[in-house]
Amino acid sequence: MTLRNNRETNYPEWYQNVINAADMAENSSSPGCMVIKPWGYGIWEKIRDIFDKKFRETGHENCYFPMFIPLSFFQKEADHVEGFAKEMAVVTHSRLGQENGKLVPLSPLDEPLIVRPTSETIIADSFSKWIQSYRDLPVLINQWANVVRWEMRPRLFLRTREFLWQEGHTAHATAKEAEQETLQMLEVYRDVAENALALPVLIGRKPEHEKFPGAVNTYCIEAMMQDGKALQAGTSHFLGQNFAKSANISFINQNGKSEYAYTTSWGVSTRLIGGIIMTHADDEGMVVPPKIAPYQIILIPVIKNDADYEKIMNYITMVQTSLNKHTPFNESIRIKIDTRNKSSVDKFWEWTRKGAPIICEIGMRDIDGAKVMVKERLKLNTPEGKEIISLDEFSSGIEKRLENIQQEMYLRAKKRLDENIRTDIKTHEEFNNYFSKTNRYLKEDNSDDKNVAFVRGKWSGDPNSEELLKNLKITIRCIPFDQSGTKGECLLTGAKDATIDVIYARTY
Amino acid sequence: MTLRNNRETNYPEWYQNVINAADMAENSSSPGCMVIKPWGYGIWEKIRDIFDKKFRETGHENCYFPMFIPLSFFQKEADHVEGFAKEMAVVTHSRLGQENGKLVPLSPLDEPLIVRPTSETIIADSFSKWIQSYRDLPVLINQWANVVRWEMRPRLFLRTREFLWQEGHTAHATAKEAEQETLQMLEVYRDVAENALALPVLIGRKPEHEKFPGAVNTYCIEAMMQDGKALQAGTSHFLGQNFAKSANISFINQNGKSEYAYTTSWGVSTRLIGGIIMTHADDEGMVVPPKIAPYQIILIPVIKNDADYEKIMNYITMVQTSLNKHTPFNESIRIKIDTRNKSSVDKFWEWTRKGAPIICEIGMRDIDGAKVMVKERLKLNTPEGKEIISLDEFSSGIEKRLENIQQEMYLRAKKRLDENIRTDIKTHEEFNNYFSKTNRYLKEDNSDDKNVAFVRGKWSGDPNSEELLKNLKITIRCIPFDQSGTKGECLLTGAKDATIDVIYARTY
Repeated sequence: MTLRNNRETNYPEWYQNVINAADMAENSSSPGCMVIKPWGYGIWEKIRDIFDKKFRETGHENCYFPMFIPLSFFQKEADHVEGFAKEMAVVTHSRLGQENGKLVPLSPLDEPLIVRPTSETIIADSFSKWIQSYRDLPVLINQWANVVRWEMRPRLFLRTREFLWQEGHTAHATAKEAEQETLQMLEVYRDVAENALALPVLIGRKPEHEKFPGAVNTYCIEAMMQDGKALQAGTSHFLGQNFAKSANISFINQNGKSEYAYTTSWGVSTRLIGGIIMTHADDEGMVVPPKIAPYQIILIPVIKNDADYEKIMNYITMVQTSLNKHTPFNESIRIKIDTRNKSSVDKFWEWTRKGAPIICEIGMRDIDGAKVMVKERLKLNTPEGKEIISLDEFSSGIEKRLENIQQEMYLRAKKRLDENIRTDIKTHEEFNNYFSKTNRYLKEDNSDDKNVAFVRGKWSGDPNSEELLKNLKITIRCIPFDQSGTKGECLLTGAKDATIDVIYARTY
Repeated sequence: MTLRNNRETNYPEWYQNVINAADMAENSSSPGCMVIKPWGYGIWEKIRDIFDKKFRETGHENCYFPMFIPLSFFQKEADHVEGFAKEMAVVTHSRLGQENGKLVPLSPLDEPLIVRPTSETIIADSFSKWIQSYRDLPVLINQWANVVRWEMRPRLFLRTREFLWQEGHTAHATAKEAEQETLQMLEVYRDVAENALALPVLIGRKPEHEKFPGAVNTYCIEAMMQDGKALQAGTSHFLGQNFAKSANISFINQNGKSEYAYTTSWGVSTRLIGGIIMTHADDEGMVVPPKIAPYQIILIPVIKNDADYEKIMNYITMVQTSLNKHTPFNESIRIKIDTRNKSSVDKFWEWTRKGAPIICEIGMRDIDGAKVMVKERLKLNTPEGKEIISLDEFSSGIEKRLENIQQEMYLRAKKRLDENIRTDIKTHEEFNNYFSKTNRYLKEDNSDDKNVAFVRGKWSGDPNSEELLKNLKITIRCIPFDQSGTKGECLLTGAKDATIDVIYARTY
């Protein structure tokens, strides 16, 4: 074990250790904010590019809106401001000056500005200018931006005061079309989460008390972390006419009548990186899915004799050239030749902790046999994890190899999710007993069934649910789309004949 | 003329008209901030990608640093805070609450936070943790981010309170290496400005009073707008040990002694888009260089008879497929088929105002002859601007055609720059006379030599220059690298035996 803590003994510390060991991010001197370092930011860039392509394919265009929102904009939508008021950074002055040798804020603003926690209000203001007629609809836009929510217990990637995200915003002529958009983008999220991030997810609708402030319906994808807790990985909101009414997004419809547009919004953030860590990392450090790895293959020269330097570097260049002809996942392959002045053993462990999918240490022995020593991060410390094969075989099989790793990462996580949703808890009493135990790290072999983490079962929809859930320190993650239609005891309240199937879980 | 104002009659209004007509950006309800709309943002994305590639090729990695900087960080570097104190957005509270039915800021922060005007101070703080030994150097990073400077007279792209940029930050073991880095990045800026944005630039060093606050030396690229004013298009700063000392970026050198690192920073911003508009746009609207055009070719179906719809769309798909085999500038070609429910004439003028490099209107006549009608934006309203050629010829020549447009745009701007730097003004008196006239729009034929805009001539380096320049409403844009070494009368002060060659100009 490379890390100071492993998943079983101290999961939160292990998480922090992985981030440090992989050098992905660090806490900043700016309170509650993080510095995203090159390896972490490189992963975010890959995630961004994959989503961005899908957004374009579904007809969305990128824009950029101001990060400062006039305070009065929040006065317009009551639910919205109530949801965010407690965590807003407020700009009140526009310069600094000296006072008794100390710098102090000067020039108070006429109206305070909020650093966007999300941009519905300011974007709705633009939409109200852009949209006059049904011919102007739909408007389909997205922005990649930083946002601020004043978290009191910040954690790298999961909850930081500033984070990076994308927020899609659309406006439509009908409720039906807007609902379809909301669900289409949820499907994009599911697709990318599962196929690019190797994050299996549950999809569904949020209960009333978990909705986005101002939304009619919030849909979500939910992933399971290795400690059995849920992580909300993306949300898509049908906003009805709520924001359209408060910002006056109205249009003349085909019948010449004025009506309000229907809007949607949807977002994923750097929080996904936290989810990837807690899904794929192990006790040696990070493991990055090949599709989002900044580098998929690391080539490390092993030079025992200075005289061999040129020969080895030439051979590495040959390996690189040979690999460069290949396009795993229909993209250019991403290779790093690590020529830093460090021992090859140190380099190997550094890239192992970072979770680069494939590491090749290349020395004279390889050259003599036209071979490559190939180590796969996912199979670290297993006999199959190290192969010595011909350059030809390595190179021609690289697409398949990376695809296999990607697939294997997904399947492992999928198995964990599938095996850890309890459906056998049928009564309020069993349910209470179950969640009064502490959730622990989920063993891979699932030998101890007490470690299961999600409960799928009945809910009555009781309006007092929020309080009851708080007492058990759990949440309703979602109301899955695949409802069984059966009746049973509400696990939360004990009420009979509850009809709604929900996913109960502890959460991040 | 499409626009309400042309360049000669009202240049500032013309600039605003171009942005509106091309639908690139608009003023926001958030005071002094802009909304960057899809066409403007698409251009920015292209610019970003081209720079980003160059930064990687020169060894830099992307990171992300917090946008909030503790106020105390600015106390550390006196010049730096003095330079920025008057234009800082200050966050003082972390929530909103109701007071007499009105939303008001609550929860004052222990220490106010500054929304970054630039990130030297917060990045230096991280560098001080990352750098311990000469082995940790150099550190070469970049970030793409939003920054805030509280402009009192905002103008779209040129001066907005929030803008987008990249800021590179590096740390080195020696002054020489840091100076080399500074100049290397200046060269990257020149290269991209000239070869991708078709913006010819002058390069040089800033005089003392124009330096970045806290820098030892600031280098810059300067472009000439069509009204003869200069636009600073990018800057690269050698910061010496100034920020290293204030943030304690020290390292143990090869001799085991502790010393301060040498740092650099360099940036370009969305302001470049303002420069591109004012260099290339004409009285019909925007003209975008092919390398940074979100779409290089627009295909517009011209359907006179509904029965022809399918035939025409099939033919357009064929044109697209044929073009897609080509890779101008070694990249995928960017084509837009405009199928919106609008007249083809309206579409043509819309894309003309947006400045798409090539527009093809495709109807039955083209199908019958396997032809394409090709219109080049740059040659609008000229006989050569419209060609009817075979699909084959169009497609096989597309790389060359786009390269020619790119080249022609650069050469036109380069000619304007070269022909409008006066070098014949030799005395303080001539100089005063010259700048007491108003600079007008530069005629393409240069028939009126009073329209010239930059003056290259002598400067004594007098410390009171700032005041004298202000009186004339001009600035010293740079001290060009190619100094003549001759002596002459200082154009600004009249002092004899001045040795420094500088570029004097009005500026944005």
